[in-house]
Amino acid sequence: MFGDDIFGSFGNGRPMSSAPSKAPPVEKALPCSLEELYKGTTKKMKISREIADASGKTLPIEEILTIDIKPGWKKGTKITFPEKGNEQPNVIPADLIFIIDEKPHNTFIREGNDLVVTKKVSLAEALAGVTVHVTTLDGRSLTITINNVIHPDYEEVVPKEGMPIPKDPSRKGNLRIKFNIKFPAGLTAEQKSRIKKLLAP
Amino acid sequence: MFGDDIFGSFGNGRPMSSAPSKAPPVEKALPCSLEELYKGTTKKMKISREIADASGKTLPIEEILTIDIKPGWKKGTKITFPEKGNEQPNVIPADLIFIIDEKPHNTFIREGNDLVVTKKVSLAEALAGVTVHVTTLDGRSLTITINNVIHPDYEEVVPKEGMPIPKDPSRKGNLRIKFNIKFPAGLTAEQKSRIKKLLAP
Repeated sequence: MFGDDIFGSFGNGRPMSSAPSKAPPVEKALPCSLEELYKGTTKKMKISREIADASGKTLPIEEILTIDIKPGWKKGTKITFPEKGNEQPNVIPADLIFIIDEKPHNTFIREGNDLVVTKKVSLAEALAGVTVHVTTLDGRSLTITINNVIHPDYEEVVPKEGMPIPKDPSRKGNLRIKFNIKFPAGLTAEQKSRIKKLLAP
Repeated sequence: MFGDDIFGSFGNGRPMSSAPSKAPPVEKALPCSLEELYKGTTKKMKISREIADASGKTLPIEEILTIDIKPGWKKGTKITFPEKGNEQPNVIPADLIFIIDEKPHNTFIREGNDLVVTKKVSLAEALAGVTVHVTTLDGRSLTITINNVIHPDYEEVVPKEGMPIPKDPSRKGNLRIKFNIKFPAGLTAEQKSRIKKLLAP
């Protein structure tokens, strides 16, 4: 699967070369919350590995690796620790690669650099106006008043309240608020006739 | 790509066998309107092919093939005319296979045996009730009155007005009416306050 594997198997048929082959990389998922990816954080990972002494005897050790998660990192970002795999005679230890994974969030869905939240509103609120509250990933409380008519595809965009952009964390994506409009289950004949008059063009 | 191809290429390395190989099948799309697939129809297809005389000399002919399209046939249905490909010495002519394709329809989308139509209604109609008209694929006019509140995911099901079921054309799928609710672009403060009162729980 890896180029290193192919190289390694070629090497087996040849006389011992002075250049030892390298073990294939070891990949490990690193689940992060959306809060951690928003604010950035430092994760300390304890790893267990074998190291070899001068005589070639191996012994297990534990090591702490520090990973500096930058604000705005995305799922799939790779952090490589070169040669942090097990040491064995005549083999260059594997690279250890952590791959950022994004834990599902209760409130937000990430779409690229944007954050998307869906708010449930009543039909009366959708038509007559509504104020919604959103708690940001760094704990601030946003209050957004919408006086437009909210239709089923309506999106309220709050600029720069999305995820930070890793190359320039002073810039941010947008927060997009979508709406799930709860219609009344039923209406009386009286309500129906009034609504008809009220909404008549 | 076809099993016949593989068999054919094996044959090349062997001494001439008494069993001639068969040319790979020839496939041809047969676009049908939803009306044709609803009612069933007969299609006459003119094909051009080469036939061989006793001496092995080939000459072009035209032939009319009759395809009996059964009510309810689906996209992908195959109709095979065995050995209707070109005749050549020492080769069994290819099978000619027609594959039903479904032309897009202006009104209906087919979902399995169901037909789905989307009707645009105003918010007032969605709330106060509406009568919609649907012309079926065999030209009948259906009138459907909806007094339920129509919310964005609402579906009105009209039983047995979908596509016929090929194995038993007396049975049919359903007609499902979906709704695209057109909200007012804006409302006055007066309208908003009245709606709020009207829809208050």
